[in-house]
Amino acid sequence: MKYLLSLCLLVSIAVSGQSKDESKIREIFDTALTQSSTYDWLNYLSNQIGGRLSGSVQAEEAVQYTLQELKKLDINRAYLEPVMVPKWVRGPSEFAYIETSPGNTTDVPICALGGSVATPPLGLKAEVVEVHGIKELEKIGKDKIKGKIVFFNEPMDPTLIQTLGAYGKAGSQRVNGAAEAVKYGAVGVIVRSLGLRIDDFPHTGVTRYSEDPSAEKIPAAAISTKAAEQLSKTLELNPKTKFFFKQSCRTLPDVLSHNVIAEIKGTTYPDEIIVIGGHLDSWDLGDGSHDDGAGCVQSMAVMELFNKINYKPKRTIRVVMFMNEENGLRGGTKYAENAAKNKEKHIFGLESDLGGFTPRGFTIGANEQQYKQFESWKPLFEPYFVNHFTQGGGGADIGPLRKEQKGIVLAGLRPDSQRYFVHHHTAVDTFEFVNKRELELGAAAMASLVYLVDQYGIPNK
Amino acid sequence: MKYLLSLCLLVSIAVSGQSKDESKIREIFDTALTQSSTYDWLNYLSNQIGGRLSGSVQAEEAVQYTLQELKKLDINRAYLEPVMVPKWVRGPSEFAYIETSPGNTTDVPICALGGSVATPPLGLKAEVVEVHGIKELEKIGKDKIKGKIVFFNEPMDPTLIQTLGAYGKAGSQRVNGAAEAVKYGAVGVIVRSLGLRIDDFPHTGVTRYSEDPSAEKIPAAAISTKAAEQLSKTLELNPKTKFFFKQSCRTLPDVLSHNVIAEIKGTTYPDEIIVIGGHLDSWDLGDGSHDDGAGCVQSMAVMELFNKINYKPKRTIRVVMFMNEENGLRGGTKYAENAAKNKEKHIFGLESDLGGFTPRGFTIGANEQQYKQFESWKPLFEPYFVNHFTQGGGGADIGPLRKEQKGIVLAGLRPDSQRYFVHHHTAVDTFEFVNKRELELGAAAMASLVYLVDQYGIPNK
Repeated sequence: MKYLLSLCLLVSIAVSGQSKDESKIREIFDTALTQSSTYDWLNYLSNQIGGRLSGSVQAEEAVQYTLQELKKLDINRAYLEPVMVPKWVRGPSEFAYIETSPGNTTDVPICALGGSVATPPLGLKAEVVEVHGIKELEKIGKDKIKGKIVFFNEPMDPTLIQTLGAYGKAGSQRVNGAAEAVKYGAVGVIVRSLGLRIDDFPHTGVTRYSEDPSAEKIPAAAISTKAAEQLSKTLELNPKTKFFFKQSCRTLPDVLSHNVIAEIKGTTYPDEIIVIGGHLDSWDLGDGSHDDGAGCVQSMAVMELFNKINYKPKRTIRVVMFMNEENGLRGGTKYAENAAKNKEKHIFGLESDLGGFTPRGFTIGANEQQYKQFESWKPLFEPYFVNHFTQGGGGADIGPLRKEQKGIVLAGLRPDSQRYFVHHHTAVDTFEFVNKRELELGAAAMASLVYLVDQYGIPNK
Repeated sequence: MKYLLSLCLLVSIAVSGQSKDESKIREIFDTALTQSSTYDWLNYLSNQIGGRLSGSVQAEEAVQYTLQELKKLDINRAYLEPVMVPKWVRGPSEFAYIETSPGNTTDVPICALGGSVATPPLGLKAEVVEVHGIKELEKIGKDKIKGKIVFFNEPMDPTLIQTLGAYGKAGSQRVNGAAEAVKYGAVGVIVRSLGLRIDDFPHTGVTRYSEDPSAEKIPAAAISTKAAEQLSKTLELNPKTKFFFKQSCRTLPDVLSHNVIAEIKGTTYPDEIIVIGGHLDSWDLGDGSHDDGAGCVQSMAVMELFNKINYKPKRTIRVVMFMNEENGLRGGTKYAENAAKNKEKHIFGLESDLGGFTPRGFTIGANEQQYKQFESWKPLFEPYFVNHFTQGGGGADIGPLRKEQKGIVLAGLRPDSQRYFVHHHTAVDTFEFVNKRELELGAAAMASLVYLVDQYGIPNK
């Protein structure tokens, strides 16, 4: 009898606990969909400020703007964390054409890859060797590559349902293509855009040269998917086809920039820090709405939502707008360094950096015991269709925390991924392609997960 | 021992069955994402033909186009099913303004509701009574409504995660507002657009007058959500504000149109019919890409996918492009009538009519035993994130089959619903807002479910 009573009591506690969380999460979603500043903040970042390449005037404006907006919230402090960032500038628009015979040319859309060197001032023209991935360079060999432009034309795999997987698979040609091709005597590199739509918008993104300072650097550009198909067909018909491109990008000395940080001090466990973030810098072709203005404003929204529902967290909540994810990761690295130096204890990191689309779940980087706790919360996310939880990484900016913060769980918001690689790193990553509700639902999903971690902590043994 | 062996055998059959289905569904998705005509068909329907209001030249062109495209597939027959449809025409663009005092006017975007009568040729101007839903008419009463325009201003509820629910909740003011307001002496009706974004695009949609032929009919129009908010604020400041609108729409005599039907005869159970469809007609403001060009081409794609993977169905598969879902449901009704008349046995119906967005699952209208079978297939849809199965209706066009087809299961594709009520029934329901992959994933999801029903039938007792 007594046992039964205890059991009933336990069950009733469990039920009322569940229902308290259920109603809190309902409140978070309702508030996000009716009273959130998320969309207005993104409108300002995208349309008043625009693309925010590290070291640019726009990036600095975004730092000041988000700092001021965060200061308006009911929080304990907001401050800047200095960090030196690389400054790469695109210069005047790039120009390129396919030349099938002298005077017989077709202009095609390209853009310099981030970090690339310029072509000679009057451009670079050479015959083209088409490859599908870096491995083919070896097979083709120096003799056939020397003096030519290497055209990396491996498409993203359209059959992968999670498009991030396809990005990962085809990504090496962009990141390492130039550094590899130069070893075979290539004079330049053209990379098929990492996009899943056949269109006219080239996708930029970082390329990395050899760390050996004596290694030659050759210019690298992305070509639109449509033009890549055209160039490939042209080469099939006429292997002597030449490619011309001209770009004036260059790397200037590092400049001072900042992570923007806001904090609500925990009422019960102030020393346990939960960090939520996105990256404030973006590429320069669009306005960086999806990548990653969305993640920034969603992170800010977590604090605003806690304010609006009058939730005082037990643990310290920190929102960080990381600087320089795209071409250096200096902000994320600096934040983790300082956290270690200051002996701070971070228990949980959550990043949103996959676009402002309808949220579908989270990836969670955790040990088995920790993951079980997150899995137990899945039913709470079912009413919002954000219940796809899998083991996986959190995000680039919070990644460096893994090293020194023992037992930290790093999670990432997973929005629907079908449209992301239409917009990612292009001129069509702009505000008009963000849906207000989708953006708000992502913010609510993040706030809900943070609320649960704040309530129950992270198991750690 | 023998028991154990039988068990092992059973398990191994189950496993190999599962893995056969798994690999077939993988093949369907791979093919949809790489070789499908879905997006090209929609491009033609949307950009070459355009909006397809019942009885219009465009609707007839769409009938001929889809018939011809279906005939190109490896099927047994494709044919037209005659059906008389209503013909309502919008006429010249509508015009409206808010008048706070004589000469002090602000133009606002409106559109006539489908089926509405015209205003007098020079328009209609009157004072405005704002209500939130039909119930308020009673409270306000005849004295205050007589001679005025009733302005229905109930917004869709933004907190409902499934936006279709919000549409249902606010929908009555559009469908029945005019028929109800006239009973209180109203001279016209303006309805807040059933949209979830505050913007300048009015949403049309059907309005229904009383079936009593002696009842007066007053003109009814939708006003954009932004203008609705503006009108409401203006009325708050000045209750004597007048509203003017002019529209020239009218209903012409019924005309002959057609459902388009294509069939693959079943190899084993030719008498068991599985019907898949969308509706070919659309509203006229946009090009009907999401509503419901998407559903049409996805249905056609099921047959094309079966062709491409060389799958010969056991049961008879019928694809139907239904005519006149938007303002009459004559096609769906006629199809069900003929099915009953011809003593056909339909076991399963599947409709796609909620936009061409990323598919998330299905609603399934089935008895408990049948539903269990569908639920047992959920794991097969998990790799594609289309595993949200719930009990629920199939779709308007296949709905009439419920009556005579005993034991039929009617299912609907459920795409992500966040963006649907931005585009639904507006000038921005156009091709550019459809993502190719999302559309193809929907087609693959449908083909996969049809494949399973074809393989295992529908339990019926």
